[in-house]
Amino acid sequence: MAEAKTRAERIALKVRRKQRLVRVALGEEKADLVLKNADYINVFTNEICHGDIAVANGLVVGMGENYAGETEVDVSGKIVAPGFIDAHIHLESSLVSPAEFARAVVPHGTTTVITDPHEIANVCGMGGIDYMMAASEGLPVDVHFMLPSCVPATPFEESGATLSWRDINAYFDHPRVLGLAEMMNYPGILSGNRQTIEKIVVSQAHHKKIDGHAPGLSGKALNAYMSAGVYSDHECDTLENALEKLRKGQFIMIREGTAAQNLEALMPLLTEQYAHRCMFSTDDKHPADLMEKGHIDYIVRKAIALGADPITVIKVASHYAARYFLLNNKGAIAPGYLADFVVLDDLKDVNVHQVFKRGQCVFDADNGAQALVNRPDIDPDMAACVLNTCHLPPVTADKIALHDAPVIQMIPGQIVTQDGGRAAGVNAEADILKLAVCERHHNTGHVACCYVKGYGLKRGAVATSVAHDSHNIIACGVSDEDLLTAINGLREMGGGMIVAENGVIIARLPLPVAGLITDRPLQEVNAELEACKRAACDRGVHEGVDAFMNLSFLSLPVIPSLRLTTLGVFDALKQEFVR
Amino acid sequence: MAEAKTRAERIALKVRRKQRLVRVALGEEKADLVLKNADYINVFTNEICHGDIAVANGLVVGMGENYAGETEVDVSGKIVAPGFIDAHIHLESSLVSPAEFARAVVPHGTTTVITDPHEIANVCGMGGIDYMMAASEGLPVDVHFMLPSCVPATPFEESGATLSWRDINAYFDHPRVLGLAEMMNYPGILSGNRQTIEKIVVSQAHHKKIDGHAPGLSGKALNAYMSAGVYSDHECDTLENALEKLRKGQFIMIREGTAAQNLEALMPLLTEQYAHRCMFSTDDKHPADLMEKGHIDYIVRKAIALGADPITVIKVASHYAARYFLLNNKGAIAPGYLADFVVLDDLKDVNVHQVFKRGQCVFDADNGAQALVNRPDIDPDMAACVLNTCHLPPVTADKIALHDAPVIQMIPGQIVTQDGGRAAGVNAEADILKLAVCERHHNTGHVACCYVKGYGLKRGAVATSVAHDSHNIIACGVSDEDLLTAINGLREMGGGMIVAENGVIIARLPLPVAGLITDRPLQEVNAELEACKRAACDRGVHEGVDAFMNLSFLSLPVIPSLRLTTLGVFDALKQEFVR
Repeated sequence: MAEAKTRAERIALKVRRKQRLVRVALGEEKADLVLKNADYINVFTNEICHGDIAVANGLVVGMGENYAGETEVDVSGKIVAPGFIDAHIHLESSLVSPAEFARAVVPHGTTTVITDPHEIANVCGMGGIDYMMAASEGLPVDVHFMLPSCVPATPFEESGATLSWRDINAYFDHPRVLGLAEMMNYPGILSGNRQTIEKIVVSQAHHKKIDGHAPGLSGKALNAYMSAGVYSDHECDTLENALEKLRKGQFIMIREGTAAQNLEALMPLLTEQYAHRCMFSTDDKHPADLMEKGHIDYIVRKAIALGADPITVIKVASHYAARYFLLNNKGAIAPGYLADFVVLDDLKDVNVHQVFKRGQCVFDADNGAQALVNRPDIDPDMAACVLNTCHLPPVTADKIALHDAPVIQMIPGQIVTQDGGRAAGVNAEADILKLAVCERHHNTGHVACCYVKGYGLKRGAVATSVAHDSHNIIACGVSDEDLLTAINGLREMGGGMIVAENGVIIARLPLPVAGLITDRPLQEVNAELEACKRAACDRGVHEGVDAFMNLSFLSLPVIPSLRLTTLGVFDALKQEFVR
Repeated sequence: MAEAKTRAERIALKVRRKQRLVRVALGEEKADLVLKNADYINVFTNEICHGDIAVANGLVVGMGENYAGETEVDVSGKIVAPGFIDAHIHLESSLVSPAEFARAVVPHGTTTVITDPHEIANVCGMGGIDYMMAASEGLPVDVHFMLPSCVPATPFEESGATLSWRDINAYFDHPRVLGLAEMMNYPGILSGNRQTIEKIVVSQAHHKKIDGHAPGLSGKALNAYMSAGVYSDHECDTLENALEKLRKGQFIMIREGTAAQNLEALMPLLTEQYAHRCMFSTDDKHPADLMEKGHIDYIVRKAIALGADPITVIKVASHYAARYFLLNNKGAIAPGYLADFVVLDDLKDVNVHQVFKRGQCVFDADNGAQALVNRPDIDPDMAACVLNTCHLPPVTADKIALHDAPVIQMIPGQIVTQDGGRAAGVNAEADILKLAVCERHHNTGHVACCYVKGYGLKRGAVATSVAHDSHNIIACGVSDEDLLTAINGLREMGGGMIVAENGVIIARLPLPVAGLITDRPLQEVNAELEACKRAACDRGVHEGVDAFMNLSFLSLPVIPSLRLTTLGVFDALKQEFVR
């Protein structure tokens, strides 16, 4: 650990660093790195400029003029762009630790992400935020944080923690904390709920950003939401709603991720008139999707293929996100900015050739294509906070006994559900299965059950500890025996995903960190996840239903209409439990 | 004074305010003010939108929708724009206190200025900054501060104070302090001067802006200056230099003030491609210029007349300046933004019809045309710091005795000078006059003299305590008697401007605050200043020479070639004193 320094010592050190920047910029001293003969994107003038790019101490010190460097990389014929930024993601959605996430996205040109640790905070509270910060220190992807605004998401579920303004207030001094994450409780804002507005007030007191989440909000309600201080939105799925929000002053995060894809609908925003208020976001990004499509580079590629101006798209993918989040040394290639570069083969296919982070080459397609990632050291006591988070007694048959109960009707291809009436028992032939949600944070022993229609399972049971937003254990099965095997197997495993049949665990993906993520490589995790999905599909889960993702949303009581929480079946439209 | 409140109390108060904003935005409660039927400029989409603008607690809470208000103002047929921002001005150049400056510029639509109290800091040091902050509290023009970076401007003159990084560091916590003002000591940066770079480092440590001042700087030297952390410039007088700076990432302040006018040369910046990196600045604005031409509205009018797109110009005059300075609630008409509006008759003549500051009408052309200004209370001890600042012993004839000495040759219409050789005595016929600079801050008794050619005076003497940048007393005269009358008259007056002849003071403008400004109304000050100028012109000062402004620059040792400081004649090109 660094010795404590006086302010004057810190100033003196920084002055010496700046003196070196000046000498290198003047050409009096060799640069650390020079990208020779670069065609680079100038975000200030919307043009492609040509010349050397000189780097010292991880910062750009000069472009255009001729420079010599300790390392010189000829990038003739390539296009150099500022590193890509994901403006809003829940890193937990990748199922891997931040280091493994970085290893996966660096080859796609991502050098900065803004994450909302909403999932892990719902399980581990501040300990979860602490872990994510420690686990994302010093990576080749800068991980900035927006603090979870809605833990728990609603009062109708049992989360592992509750975060008040006093809790989040403790984090604003951290240099990687940029603000308050998606304020999804817009009904709370509109009704003047004190606890909800307090979090905005305390964020503003620290001059931090407040992100929004308000699908379809419009008119005076939108005015009120904005007046409270919410200046972005990533939930626009129609151009009309996006334009109203943009026109009123919100920044629009164009979301194109695993669970939701809005790029095509919002393509008209990628024009001179609107693009300066836009950025890209994935929100959720699952392992297979990351591996198959890529990350922000995929959105860039798709937007260009759909006809947007490439320089405009690159600016949305970097510059405008940096401006919104006040990341003053990011999102441009210019003296004083971080030397975060993506070297692209061209602006059509957007193939990533090399990636530089603070002037260091962290990915080279010609050279083994392995991203350079150092795993951060995590304090063992902090790491312990996020392990062994399945705090529930073994579930017994009496806990999941069920007769007459409501049926949640799933809708193919959507996460909204319908009221499916009632049923008196499981009937796999008629696709009526038992659904159970088991509280796993505080050993309450709370278990709630109902029926679900539309999942498709004909044999066995499926269970997961990734269950939005409180991440209790949710399980769906044909027989009580299989349900108990899956639930208790998951309990013993410490969380993850599981498929069981006839008392045997058929497939499993352990997610030891908060029951949400693991620090194994993305490829391994994806292989096990795919094996789990295959095991579920082999047992009848409908095509078009993601055996785990769709299951995980069945406990989220903010999406219409019926959901199952640890407290019972909840009607999200009526905002009340079904008796 | 407000009672000390706990953090929780402050949060609770702010929550209640936000709850009201929400209710008003929703239409559940009447707004304080509604501009009905407004055509307002939407800076997010570059369009003119139509509808009501509702205001509560000084903030916009809704636009577009229909709202009812306690006060309703029909603005049909007018154009509503966000209040104008002057991105860089030395308020002292107006010769009046901030309150009187505000009274003068509010009718021109200015609602925010960013001032650099460089002049008063050179006289009174931190006491001068303290005074300007206190004197600009609660005005209808928000006065933000950039901290003087170069006090004194050079080591070759004797200023009233020296400001180190430790001095300026004390100010960064003030909410109206936005950063470090024009870093004109670019040679210091390029040579790695520690004291110069320290000020940048400490400003960056507070996440504050650093403004530049580097006429003509280019190539690697510009790269080095920017690498040190300087991200704006208001000294561009050619498009070429402006474009290089903009392309490399500097923000360009297009300056159009009294001493320098760059708008015409920089008109091509006012286009979609470049305007987003530009703002307007006056730098210096003298009383007559303010009264005759106006302020930022004059620049807007001129730019539109020269062919720029009106909405682009309005954005440069408000939105982009607010973005650069991170004034997040300024520069747009949108929910949550300050209700700072300029109501214009149209976008051609740009006549200001009404001005609203935080929702209050502070100027109405139909209603007496008097701006509403409350003078702030200033602590008497703080006010005393800036009064009686002429600390020099009475100047006697022996102090200004002179025989063979260098001649400073003035150039018509410019502030640069030439080496005029040497002279042996005053010769009014040949336009060779005596020039004296008397140290007035520390009673050193330092007086330096030389000759000046090109001023034109045939009788009497002219003296001023506004003398860049150290603001000692500078005087020019035909006879020693008149010089002593003028200098000692100024000394007794406590600073200002004066014309004397035959032992009598002919005309005078007292500037009791630091010898730089007064808190009398601009009209009165201008009348006295004009009388002084007329008295000087009557005594022979050449047409095309501003008797006081041109005189005041003769002591500024950063402008080529010859200057006179309290220490002697200085060659700014050779950076040495003339023997």
